[in-house]
Amino acid sequence: MHLRSKPWASDWLAEHSDIVIDQDRATAQIGQWQSLFDQEQPIYLEIGSGKGQFILGMALAHPEINYIGMEIQETAIAIAARKSFDQVGTLPNLRYIYGNGNGVETYFEKGEVSKVYLNFSDPWPKKRHESRRLTYKSFLKSYEAVLPEHGEVEFKTDNRHLFEYSMVSFMDYGMRWTPEDYTLDLHADEDKVQGNIETEYEQKFMAKGQPIYKIKAHF
Amino acid sequence: MHLRSKPWASDWLAEHSDIVIDQDRATAQIGQWQSLFDQEQPIYLEIGSGKGQFILGMALAHPEINYIGMEIQETAIAIAARKSFDQVGTLPNLRYIYGNGNGVETYFEKGEVSKVYLNFSDPWPKKRHESRRLTYKSFLKSYEAVLPEHGEVEFKTDNRHLFEYSMVSFMDYGMRWTPEDYTLDLHADEDKVQGNIETEYEQKFMAKGQPIYKIKAHF
Repeated sequence: MHLRSKPWASDWLAEHSDIVIDQDRATAQIGQWQSLFDQEQPIYLEIGSGKGQFILGMALAHPEINYIGMEIQETAIAIAARKSFDQVGTLPNLRYIYGNGNGVETYFEKGEVSKVYLNFSDPWPKKRHESRRLTYKSFLKSYEAVLPEHGEVEFKTDNRHLFEYSMVSFMDYGMRWTPEDYTLDLHADEDKVQGNIETEYEQKFMAKGQPIYKIKAHF
Repeated sequence: MHLRSKPWASDWLAEHSDIVIDQDRATAQIGQWQSLFDQEQPIYLEIGSGKGQFILGMALAHPEINYIGMEIQETAIAIAARKSFDQVGTLPNLRYIYGNGNGVETYFEKGEVSKVYLNFSDPWPKKRHESRRLTYKSFLKSYEAVLPEHGEVEFKTDNRHLFEYSMVSFMDYGMRWTPEDYTLDLHADEDKVQGNIETEYEQKFMAKGQPIYKIKAHF
């Protein structure tokens, strides 16, 4: 996702540090994330939350879960957090981290996150950029480090190559799933699409009639 | 695999039609393949048997199984069959089909083949050639048509992209496997490499230190 940088982003983030946590504060927050939410309840983390439609939709639909959207692009995280703030104010169960997926184990203790979401991650198609893909083994190691034993990663993409790559990366890492845990056409699958919250990308690709691939794999 | 055509191939095949069955005879043989072997016992079929090292090795190692190597390239099948014939004569449990994997359901009845092997199949890397890959859905449909219910396909390759593609193609077709059924480095896996018969390609890639991917998936 390439966003033109917004002159207001940096200031807005600084003024809303109760909602958007920067990397330094995220590191200091390790083991104490529950204190940032109204209720002590499971934390689900989206890595690469982009403009935030998914994580906001999830937070509104599931008040019984605490959500964190993590995003490395300043403009994207500022758009996401501001849109959410302007629409519904400060939600009791939604926070953001302006930070990097590779650093996730410096922000969270083992088991502090109950589920990881990856949605329409950058496919980085060139072989030399493999290590940037959010399903590359070093990222999987980071997710494993913050999830409970057998913790789950939910992954959606429109990109067939990234999906193929990710399946084998999951296999290589020893992750598991059953045929009930995936679909190669989410929106044609009545059961699996139930409760699905669409991302901005997802809507764009659905409009073009392209299938959305989804898998839930666990460590 | 690109082989220079051999002037002797066509005549040799015509003279050894008891060992190498052409497409017309293979079609006529439907339902009666056991009659070509000494013993009535399960038939395992390799599709794309190339120069035949794998299928010959398997036939020698497992006299309790009947093997068929199928190959569409005349030169390759002639080299395979002649080498085998010159080395060990006519084996009671090994035959060849000079024919096309896509036609497999015109040669065999449902359940007449007990297992399908695919070894180092051409990766056909271009998207527009997807339908030529031996793990494309139309091929899977053909294999399913000749295997028993829940029949198995064993697949080895050095090509990571073809492996990734094939996993998702298997998933898309509803095929299943467990983590015990695959390895992403066959020759580093003491258990799974037991009894492995190497193909010519396999030895070439092993010599370069490249990993061999293997999966057993069933319908």
